[in-house]
Amino acid sequence: MTISGHMLLGAEEVMGTSAQINAINPATGEKMAPDFGGGTQADVDKACNKAAKAFSSFRRLSNEKRAAFIDSCADNIMELGDELVERVMAETGLPQPRVVGERGRTVGQLKLFAQLIRDGNYLGARIDTAMPDREPLPRLDHRMQYIPLGPVAVFGASNFPLAFSVAGGDTAAAFAAGCPVIVKAHSSHPGTSELVGRALQKAVADHGLDEGVFSLVFGSGREVGSALVSHPAIKAVGFTGSEGGGTALMKLAAARPEPIPVYAEMSSINPVFLLPDALATRGAEIGSNLVASMMMGAGQFCTSPGLVIAMAGDGYDDFVASARDSIAEAAPQTMLSPTIHEAYQKGVEHLSSMSQLSQLSQGKEAQGCQCRAALFEVSASDFISNEDLREEVFGSCSLVVRCDNAEQMITVLNSLRGQLTGAIHATDAEDPELVDGLIEALELKVGRIIWNGFGTGVEVCHAMVHGGPYPATADGRSTSVGTAAIDRYMRPVCYQNMPNKYLPKSVDEENSLGICRLVNGEVVTN
Amino acid sequence: MTISGHMLLGAEEVMGTSAQINAINPATGEKMAPDFGGGTQADVDKACNKAAKAFSSFRRLSNEKRAAFIDSCADNIMELGDELVERVMAETGLPQPRVVGERGRTVGQLKLFAQLIRDGNYLGARIDTAMPDREPLPRLDHRMQYIPLGPVAVFGASNFPLAFSVAGGDTAAAFAAGCPVIVKAHSSHPGTSELVGRALQKAVADHGLDEGVFSLVFGSGREVGSALVSHPAIKAVGFTGSEGGGTALMKLAAARPEPIPVYAEMSSINPVFLLPDALATRGAEIGSNLVASMMMGAGQFCTSPGLVIAMAGDGYDDFVASARDSIAEAAPQTMLSPTIHEAYQKGVEHLSSMSQLSQLSQGKEAQGCQCRAALFEVSASDFISNEDLREEVFGSCSLVVRCDNAEQMITVLNSLRGQLTGAIHATDAEDPELVDGLIEALELKVGRIIWNGFGTGVEVCHAMVHGGPYPATADGRSTSVGTAAIDRYMRPVCYQNMPNKYLPKSVDEENSLGICRLVNGEVVTN
Repeated sequence: MTISGHMLLGAEEVMGTSAQINAINPATGEKMAPDFGGGTQADVDKACNKAAKAFSSFRRLSNEKRAAFIDSCADNIMELGDELVERVMAETGLPQPRVVGERGRTVGQLKLFAQLIRDGNYLGARIDTAMPDREPLPRLDHRMQYIPLGPVAVFGASNFPLAFSVAGGDTAAAFAAGCPVIVKAHSSHPGTSELVGRALQKAVADHGLDEGVFSLVFGSGREVGSALVSHPAIKAVGFTGSEGGGTALMKLAAARPEPIPVYAEMSSINPVFLLPDALATRGAEIGSNLVASMMMGAGQFCTSPGLVIAMAGDGYDDFVASARDSIAEAAPQTMLSPTIHEAYQKGVEHLSSMSQLSQLSQGKEAQGCQCRAALFEVSASDFISNEDLREEVFGSCSLVVRCDNAEQMITVLNSLRGQLTGAIHATDAEDPELVDGLIEALELKVGRIIWNGFGTGVEVCHAMVHGGPYPATADGRSTSVGTAAIDRYMRPVCYQNMPNKYLPKSVDEENSLGICRLVNGEVVTN
Repeated sequence: MTISGHMLLGAEEVMGTSAQINAINPATGEKMAPDFGGGTQADVDKACNKAAKAFSSFRRLSNEKRAAFIDSCADNIMELGDELVERVMAETGLPQPRVVGERGRTVGQLKLFAQLIRDGNYLGARIDTAMPDREPLPRLDHRMQYIPLGPVAVFGASNFPLAFSVAGGDTAAAFAAGCPVIVKAHSSHPGTSELVGRALQKAVADHGLDEGVFSLVFGSGREVGSALVSHPAIKAVGFTGSEGGGTALMKLAAARPEPIPVYAEMSSINPVFLLPDALATRGAEIGSNLVASMMMGAGQFCTSPGLVIAMAGDGYDDFVASARDSIAEAAPQTMLSPTIHEAYQKGVEHLSSMSQLSQLSQGKEAQGCQCRAALFEVSASDFISNEDLREEVFGSCSLVVRCDNAEQMITVLNSLRGQLTGAIHATDAEDPELVDGLIEALELKVGRIIWNGFGTGVEVCHAMVHGGPYPATADGRSTSVGTAAIDRYMRPVCYQNMPNKYLPKSVDEENSLGICRLVNGEVVTN
């Protein structure tokens, strides 16, 4: 498939006329062909109006038809074959196995959402039957189902060119809910975005759906994104990126005549707690595992372990020595873009300049856009008194906070803002009071608590929560990974005293969809 | 029980030192004793800090213990007996049967939430078990439950002194979720608020709970409310009132360093559609039923039918004549407060002054704070071209839009902003295309669709949706009535690879709580 540089406004190909965008190969610094034209307000209007029109039919497709469409999106992505893998590698510097793995995850995610809507339980059906003889007043029949919100704007993420971009989790969840999607491609991988966009565009056409079900726009500044979030047809926003970018979108959405929800995944340093017995019995192993997690993908994951809170004592030195050696040995990896690389270097330099910190280790010398890993250490009291240290340094950088007692560990935790994940490394022999205290405090700070592991590697399943209190996400009441993400794009509607022939199938007398429903407060499976 | 004028900051009684508040009996215009002192920033801080402290233990109470506490809240309200009923009547002008009915609803609502948490399914438990042999990577065990957000600020509503105030739906849902509550009393019924507040305060003490589980503050201006919404300990807001008030809270909450969700129920005119065959066969009956609904409680319901979209033709004149006669015969009722009465009169005068409207009927002459009902008529084309007519006139006022065809009906509907309810009056013989078109359009505009009825009389059940797109509510993804309201105050947490002994009971191996769980994607009931 030729990459042409066009935006996809429904079935139309449109060359943007605002600022030109080019991908840059971060490994070589070279500008890649073709030129992509950035969109204008008029392009956004066209995509949004098409999405608004498409919503009417798309939301009323049967579950089976929408599922078949989503399956085709997945199949069409696989059919792009090596061309897609190679373009992703060139645009992002990510190694081949990672790209192939991420493609598998993206496709699996689409298929899981297709299965979710085939099952039908996502409709959240509830029925309270009439009680004509109730005193003092009869009860009428009430039934509830969830319906899609409307067209959704999705912003592609730089660090997951497939799994959190054009056909990523937000798009999959929105399609599954019945929402048309307009993706604003991330400007660092426009070719990848066009290829995947064409795969989705083809699925729309092959299934005879309204063209407005999917559009893809480009834009290098904030104009296109702002126009999208401000458009009256858009009813929700999905975003993965910086705290600054996400917060700007939240403000735009809140200032609309009709405010809309923004699901922005932003900033997280993912505290990892190392408990005394775990350190004493396997400190060295934890050190090398930590480094494996923080080096993975050059640390460019929202779940990268940026903060380690460790109890000083037996095994602490083994942990540090092992981490130090592992970092020194690891090969540096190319970062996603020159911009990200520059921000990483600034962050590390800032930490290096702070007198309270000591640098424990540094990765092999790096070249060009490569990430030179860094591990720092600070005392608990210095950490607590210095708010700067709670900021994310995006990349393979981590800070070890040395604690003298359990109280300090909890104090460090309570000083943090909201996080995506928190991990506890412990054995069966730890003080249960400390473990309970950590779990209790973590529940209020994070979306996912991990036992003897790290946050990297996010399973796409039903029980996943990839979210957390602000600023980890804009809205900690939801997840961006896993099937519960579909709840982001739906809202409940109640049908009171409605004749069966006009009821939605989800709540009809026959249970036509054969789904699980809450009937008079009892869960009734078919 | 003596009404003392004190705020309840946890177990403390504090006389506010800012502007004095007095209830005014709307039937007589008399200022009522005692004097209530408005709170200050320091009072709000104290209540919030107590709530933050109480959250830790309250959220970890067993379901049974929290349910027993909520049951006691209900019992203690009943034990206030006639004193409460009389105080409500005096402060609001509402008639005795309505107050007794609303008390029953409030108490029933608390008991329903107690039952909901005893059942335990509200925890939304999900389990994805480990697959150690999965290729290319093993799957770890993941489990999810919902936990409470934290302390909630609830703003009492003027029009439901019991069911949407101190111990109303938001408080019941927040308590059930495990969130401490701070109520800002509505200044038009402070005595009612204190009585109910003391009933809750007593339940907190009798169950040995942390005093900070419940506080009640007063304030006549915006200072106390703003301080509450801006306090870092507050994690969500429930509000019922005007669009101006609710929107101000939304802006405050969005501007916080940590933005929080606001559930504000605001403005709704609740369109009612009268279809041709329904009008032809029972136009007169619909007319008198409409008036019964719009006169109920002097129309001071968020679900009052403020807009009737009727097809001109057979039965239309019967409908109008019957509505006109019913209004002329009905006794005027006292409104909740002089302020509300004044706003109502201004609204009706504005409509009377508009040349495109004709006044179909007017209620009996009213005195003092009484509501003189009013019914107007306008053509569909004039309605569509005049945005002013979409504004709510809070009280027994309704506007009939006369349509010439089905297309006009849909155009009128599509011109509206978000609504709590929409009703369709129809027979089996209506054009199914028109009915389907209306249902489809209503789904996107309202939270509840009613067949052959009116929005007034909101059933407290599992399938209820009392919500709807902005500006009906701040957040159409939730309901303020019914058990689904508990979702407002919860968020998901995932536990990865956690040993059984540290797992929450909701997702443990034994299913200790005996609840319904989603296990590997399948609903498993106990």
